[in-house]
Amino acid sequence: MAEFFRVLTPIDAWAKLAEHYRPALQVEEVATFAALDRFLAETPLAPHDLPQFARSTVDGYAVRARDTFGASSSLPAFLDVVGEVAMGRQAEVTLGVGQAALVHTGGMIPAGADAVVMVENTQRADEHSIEVLSAAAVGENVIQVGEDVRQGDVIVEAGHRLRPQDIGGLLALGFVRVRVARPPRVALISTGDEVIPPDQTPGPGQVRDINSYTLALLAQRAGAEPVLFGIIPDRREALEEAVRSALAGCDLVVLSAGSSVSYRDMSAEVIAGMGAPGVLAHGISIRPGKPTIVAVTQNKPVFGLPGNPVSAMVLFDLLVAPAIRLALGGRPFAEHQPQVRARLARQINSAAGREDHVQVRLEERAGELWAVPVFGKSNLIYTLVRADGVVRVPLHSLGLEQGAWVGVSLYA
Amino acid sequence: MAEFFRVLTPIDAWAKLAEHYRPALQVEEVATFAALDRFLAETPLAPHDLPQFARSTVDGYAVRARDTFGASSSLPAFLDVVGEVAMGRQAEVTLGVGQAALVHTGGMIPAGADAVVMVENTQRADEHSIEVLSAAAVGENVIQVGEDVRQGDVIVEAGHRLRPQDIGGLLALGFVRVRVARPPRVALISTGDEVIPPDQTPGPGQVRDINSYTLALLAQRAGAEPVLFGIIPDRREALEEAVRSALAGCDLVVLSAGSSVSYRDMSAEVIAGMGAPGVLAHGISIRPGKPTIVAVTQNKPVFGLPGNPVSAMVLFDLLVAPAIRLALGGRPFAEHQPQVRARLARQINSAAGREDHVQVRLEERAGELWAVPVFGKSNLIYTLVRADGVVRVPLHSLGLEQGAWVGVSLYA
Repeated sequence: MAEFFRVLTPIDAWAKLAEHYRPALQVEEVATFAALDRFLAETPLAPHDLPQFARSTVDGYAVRARDTFGASSSLPAFLDVVGEVAMGRQAEVTLGVGQAALVHTGGMIPAGADAVVMVENTQRADEHSIEVLSAAAVGENVIQVGEDVRQGDVIVEAGHRLRPQDIGGLLALGFVRVRVARPPRVALISTGDEVIPPDQTPGPGQVRDINSYTLALLAQRAGAEPVLFGIIPDRREALEEAVRSALAGCDLVVLSAGSSVSYRDMSAEVIAGMGAPGVLAHGISIRPGKPTIVAVTQNKPVFGLPGNPVSAMVLFDLLVAPAIRLALGGRPFAEHQPQVRARLARQINSAAGREDHVQVRLEERAGELWAVPVFGKSNLIYTLVRADGVVRVPLHSLGLEQGAWVGVSLYA
Repeated sequence: MAEFFRVLTPIDAWAKLAEHYRPALQVEEVATFAALDRFLAETPLAPHDLPQFARSTVDGYAVRARDTFGASSSLPAFLDVVGEVAMGRQAEVTLGVGQAALVHTGGMIPAGADAVVMVENTQRADEHSIEVLSAAAVGENVIQVGEDVRQGDVIVEAGHRLRPQDIGGLLALGFVRVRVARPPRVALISTGDEVIPPDQTPGPGQVRDINSYTLALLAQRAGAEPVLFGIIPDRREALEEAVRSALAGCDLVVLSAGSSVSYRDMSAEVIAGMGAPGVLAHGISIRPGKPTIVAVTQNKPVFGLPGNPVSAMVLFDLLVAPAIRLALGGRPFAEHQPQVRARLARQINSAAGREDHVQVRLEERAGELWAVPVFGKSNLIYTLVRADGVVRVPLHSLGLEQGAWVGVSLYA
């Protein structure tokens, strides 16, 4: 199986995958209000200006700015109040010289007016007129037509993952339905004769399945629809059958468990048998997670992740989630990675040519934030449960000193 | 209405709210696999050790470490192979002096063995024996019983929001159902005679409802169940009726729209009429978002948020989301706020005694990341759509210089 032993760096493994995996976007239309966290599959243009009429941002009097020039509390401008603009209605008055109209926040600016004086800067003179105590500039306290968005403007770009405010923006322009990417189906296949479902009691030598569920939920968060194929015994025909059926019904396939060499070789052979280009990387220069298979067959990515939970999660975040986002028409990698800055509580040794992902817990010590490595073996699920996030030691670094400031990517 | 004009700092407003709002946790039991992002309502203890048997972390030979002391490639130790441990089974052999057993990754360590030698560090001598080419330390390549988690250990604390790995950890210990907080119901009431539903075409002076939807989705993200009460006309009886019915059926109430002074006063009066302690803050020293009402009545928080979308979102994040998390038994505020560091592209002026929340876009310029303030008025929804995140200017700061390094909290 030596031909398969192609250990690639994380970046090269991704590049190989992206070279061979060209997903066709699948689109569906949904109610905009139900599209939170979905990936937009179109680039809608504003069908009209927003706002469609000039609006007041305050309670006050719509005026002609020039009528207030030079006004002050010692020398107020006197204006005739010729009406009140009702909310949600056409402003029916038209201001002439020396005239004003009462407007409320959000109300329409009447014809002839070009500014609003806040009610706090006015004083009633008599029943029909006011004193304006400070000059208004043209446009003051007014939102102009199209100031929010102009007709024909791009609203949100295709590929963007919709946030609450994006949905607000779409609805403000009347887009009550939108076209979004259909979630790709991600098959999760756990293997191992020692693995049993979580609702069973393990006998000697048996352990409950963890990865099917953890990886399914990570896939769901990334925007996919997870499809659990259950636990497959360590036999070639069983694995072959499972992978074939996963490829038939799903868009991406994730195998997990079976970290033994013979199992990995068997997985690689089974994947290779499904068609070109087959296995692209057999081994990634990363710790934990080296024994990873990256493949593309039938234009679908197939990942063989290590069976231990920490490695599986590291590799999922590194390669599987980006592939899911690619299938959704999104950016595979976030442009900006928000982090918490903390000091490293223990030295981390690395090796040049290997990227290390170290699970850490955050701890406040004497007013400073410290990142404490959770040095469990990568076979332990509680290494992940106890971790607040992860510190990455780059490929060419030999490690990080104790006390060094590091960026911690938090687990949400 | 002067009695209501209690402008508080954000911190004081929260303190007042927390003093009067003591939610009773509502609990339900759900399938663990369906509990992603739910708040745990119990503190489960490990019912058994994990793993329950000593396991190998590699493919190799289980040995008695002392039998390999001093072994090297020039002076190998010879061991008799007395069996192979099948995956998922009790290891049936017991090692005596000078004996070894083949084990696979994840397999059970047989009785008598206390270490595993990687297969790469061995060589077949004949059909029944191997040469060990390097010494193994006691415990090497072995996960001990209880090394992941010990029987009786706290697994995850009540109040924790479940992440994929937490669910994996719970399932590994056989917790297939868990008790979690029931999502509090958050009523969303939009008001304003100018506001129409998004599926209608605005006439002169009319605008589509944005806040009901944006705030509902923010509430959903925070862990609540949003309940839309629709658009209520600007009449006291209508508002009273809506608030009464919201208080009867929901756990928190959010009013939005109506930024005019008369409307705010009306809202405050209506809320005050629903029972003690009533309005706690009428105005928050924050920009944008000053005209905000914070109240508790019938042991339920009621928020009157400004009608403009930017203010509404800032105040939601600042007060409503923490109140939802409190109702869920969680921490109201995240302990650590991950941020992206960037340089400020324009000076921001603030006033001492006022907290400023400035929407920014991130932009790469000559290899440096810059935070560009999106200086739309807070009445514009596209100020939020165009923003990648927010920069906070603290209460006692007079502003931030152009070029200063700032922390940007990204919108997810």
